[in-house]
Amino acid sequence: MRMYDIIEKKRDGHPLTEEEIRFFVEGYTDGSIPDYQASALCMAIYFRGMNDQEISILTDAMAHSGDMLDLSRFGTLSADKHSTGGVGDKTSLIVMPIIAALGAKVAKMTGRGLGHTGGTVDKLESIPGYDVTLDGQTFMQQVEDIGISLIGQSGNMTPADKKLYALRDVTATVDSIPLITSSIMCKKLAAGAHNIVLDVKVGSGAFMKTVEDARELATKMTTIGRLCGRNIAAVLTNMNQPLGHNIGNALEVQEAVEVLNGGGPDDMKQVCLALASALASMVFQIPHDEAVQRAEEALVSGAAFQKMVEWIGRQGGDVRYLKDTSLFPKCSCVYEVKATESGYIQSMDAEQIGLCSVLLGAGRATKEESIDPAAGIILNKKIGAPVNKGDVLCTLYTNREAVIPTAEQQYIQAVRIGAEAPEEEPLIYDIIR
Amino acid sequence: MRMYDIIEKKRDGHPLTEEEIRFFVEGYTDGSIPDYQASALCMAIYFRGMNDQEISILTDAMAHSGDMLDLSRFGTLSADKHSTGGVGDKTSLIVMPIIAALGAKVAKMTGRGLGHTGGTVDKLESIPGYDVTLDGQTFMQQVEDIGISLIGQSGNMTPADKKLYALRDVTATVDSIPLITSSIMCKKLAAGAHNIVLDVKVGSGAFMKTVEDARELATKMTTIGRLCGRNIAAVLTNMNQPLGHNIGNALEVQEAVEVLNGGGPDDMKQVCLALASALASMVFQIPHDEAVQRAEEALVSGAAFQKMVEWIGRQGGDVRYLKDTSLFPKCSCVYEVKATESGYIQSMDAEQIGLCSVLLGAGRATKEESIDPAAGIILNKKIGAPVNKGDVLCTLYTNREAVIPTAEQQYIQAVRIGAEAPEEEPLIYDIIR
Repeated sequence: MRMYDIIEKKRDGHPLTEEEIRFFVEGYTDGSIPDYQASALCMAIYFRGMNDQEISILTDAMAHSGDMLDLSRFGTLSADKHSTGGVGDKTSLIVMPIIAALGAKVAKMTGRGLGHTGGTVDKLESIPGYDVTLDGQTFMQQVEDIGISLIGQSGNMTPADKKLYALRDVTATVDSIPLITSSIMCKKLAAGAHNIVLDVKVGSGAFMKTVEDARELATKMTTIGRLCGRNIAAVLTNMNQPLGHNIGNALEVQEAVEVLNGGGPDDMKQVCLALASALASMVFQIPHDEAVQRAEEALVSGAAFQKMVEWIGRQGGDVRYLKDTSLFPKCSCVYEVKATESGYIQSMDAEQIGLCSVLLGAGRATKEESIDPAAGIILNKKIGAPVNKGDVLCTLYTNREAVIPTAEQQYIQAVRIGAEAPEEEPLIYDIIR
Repeated sequence: MRMYDIIEKKRDGHPLTEEEIRFFVEGYTDGSIPDYQASALCMAIYFRGMNDQEISILTDAMAHSGDMLDLSRFGTLSADKHSTGGVGDKTSLIVMPIIAALGAKVAKMTGRGLGHTGGTVDKLESIPGYDVTLDGQTFMQQVEDIGISLIGQSGNMTPADKKLYALRDVTATVDSIPLITSSIMCKKLAAGAHNIVLDVKVGSGAFMKTVEDARELATKMTTIGRLCGRNIAAVLTNMNQPLGHNIGNALEVQEAVEVLNGGGPDDMKQVCLALASALASMVFQIPHDEAVQRAEEALVSGAAFQKMVEWIGRQGGDVRYLKDTSLFPKCSCVYEVKATESGYIQSMDAEQIGLCSVLLGAGRATKEESIDPAAGIILNKKIGAPVNKGDVLCTLYTNREAVIPTAEQQYIQAVRIGAEAPEEEPLIYDIIR
């Protein structure tokens, strides 16, 4: 078999066989197929596409290119949630305890934040004592015992995807549905869960800017997930503004605790219930309505909060912080950003607000930077809110006093105020099963 | 300027600017643009094409990527001929003396043979004493004095094309009219002549298998040549069988001498007159009919043969061989291939016959092999000829006795004999100006 023939075949619009796709993924991973042939194939795929069969083989081959998490001991009870990345997105901290409280098995490896979006590992590390580096056996035993553990990613997962994504990124071949789908889904497959819910963010702060594009990608991802033998659902959620009120690591943990105690912002609660119920429906094979009801009960009864306390405690975290969030350390600078005009908030640039929180110390612009767990933003006014000049739009929390003028400027520019109340937008656009 | 943006722009179907194309060619030649970006761009060009403006800039940029032959001292009188490659193609040995005898200036760098096609340098070296390695000044002075010199290629011509062609060859991006056109034409531009005739071979022994494909490529090449400021014409000639009767280096020189003395095979003569008159028409700005007449006169009068004698002598060749071709060394084995059935010759596989001559010693399968100047084939019967079983189809000349059975077999398989006389095919399909 020759890579040349594979490129030519795809170039001429023919579907590739399983043998050809695996030959490519294995050869590219081990370096026997050079970058210049891989980039030519990616461009041919950009123009010619791939059918679902091809995409599912490509996804599976990339998933198997490195280490995989083996959750087979949990049978069909393992559950996972993935987000395409948003600002103020602390849903994992809420959805995973809910679903574990209902009896699912959550063995989740999760990432750190980079750029304008935060990472669940960073959020968990803001709880003193929490250990994100359990060894494999301890990790699995905890899930056996209490149904939930979240740790940082380790090992050599999906090296084929890492290498191919870096190549696509410099050869203008990122924007291809088959390549995007396989790149996202191979990581989900390698993460091992039998039931997967995807939180596909749509809007100014997300990779997908329109509902149509997000629906196309979500439909493709669920199709491929099923072809690869997993139960899968996708929820399309609004990311035209940050989710909830709090941005920043400890601030987001505090908001998660509020929601788990029956409070918190309504948008936060609705999105978490949609994700949790989509998962519950698959894990327990129950109708949607019943799944929604069970998820709500887990919140209202306090079972989900109890599960969070059990989980954080078992993993070394100081649970007093969960029971009294006022214990979290405070920043030296607390600054209120005030409206410079009156009207209604028309739009918020979630990406700019995410970058503003990075400036305050809540995130990293490069992998090497350290994070200030206490830094962040609490939003007072979101889209649709009436505002008078001088009203507090948000509060900035930082230990870097010098950045406040720039951060204030950035925040004000990210929020557009106009005379008329804007039309209300859906929070959840669609659920794709 | 970033290569990424250039790839993306072409991927999205937009024409590239002159600045972008030159940035790519220069960067790829000097190594600052990596292979994997160049191959992605080539695949995008494969799908999106290029307009004539883009192709002419690409051609010009590749022509200027290395050394160029400067023939400006000859004004508009410089003339060159290029063939897309055929078997038994000794037209340069005939056309160049004709056009030089008419007053054009022929300063031609020419190549060696590889694979099934021969090279003019190899043919000239079969004349004892002929020097293919003149230095630049001697070369130019000879053209000043007598109007003609042919030497081997030297220097670093069109390195961008060499590098890009090697890449296209392994990434399935050869079959693209813009890339084929620029690859062929940049070499013609770098060769420096103001007037260029292209002999575009069509048929079993050629790169272009159909007249339609050849016409498309020829039209594109002449358009691009003109946009790059040259006078250019293309003659589409039949390569469904070898040209003339003789294949092999000294054998082809002998046939060229026959044609220049008013004899030789008719197909050979007709193709040479078409090429020479197309050139004469451009160089002297005269109508086609007059150009044909002048070219014929140069043959009939002996002026072209005299020019050949003058040229070969000036370049150190022993002109006694031209005046008495029986002086050329003979091979130790001379073998007649006889027909194994009766009928008419239906077709001849020119490529297989070319490879048969390589086996006899007339060419090289790899660059390192040496050539036997005396080896080759003289064809007795060509397409349409009636044949009786036992008739001599051709004579093989070789100093490698052991290869004769294989060569005979190869020749017989290349010649198809059938009951009916085949339809006569045109020798010259079209002349594109």
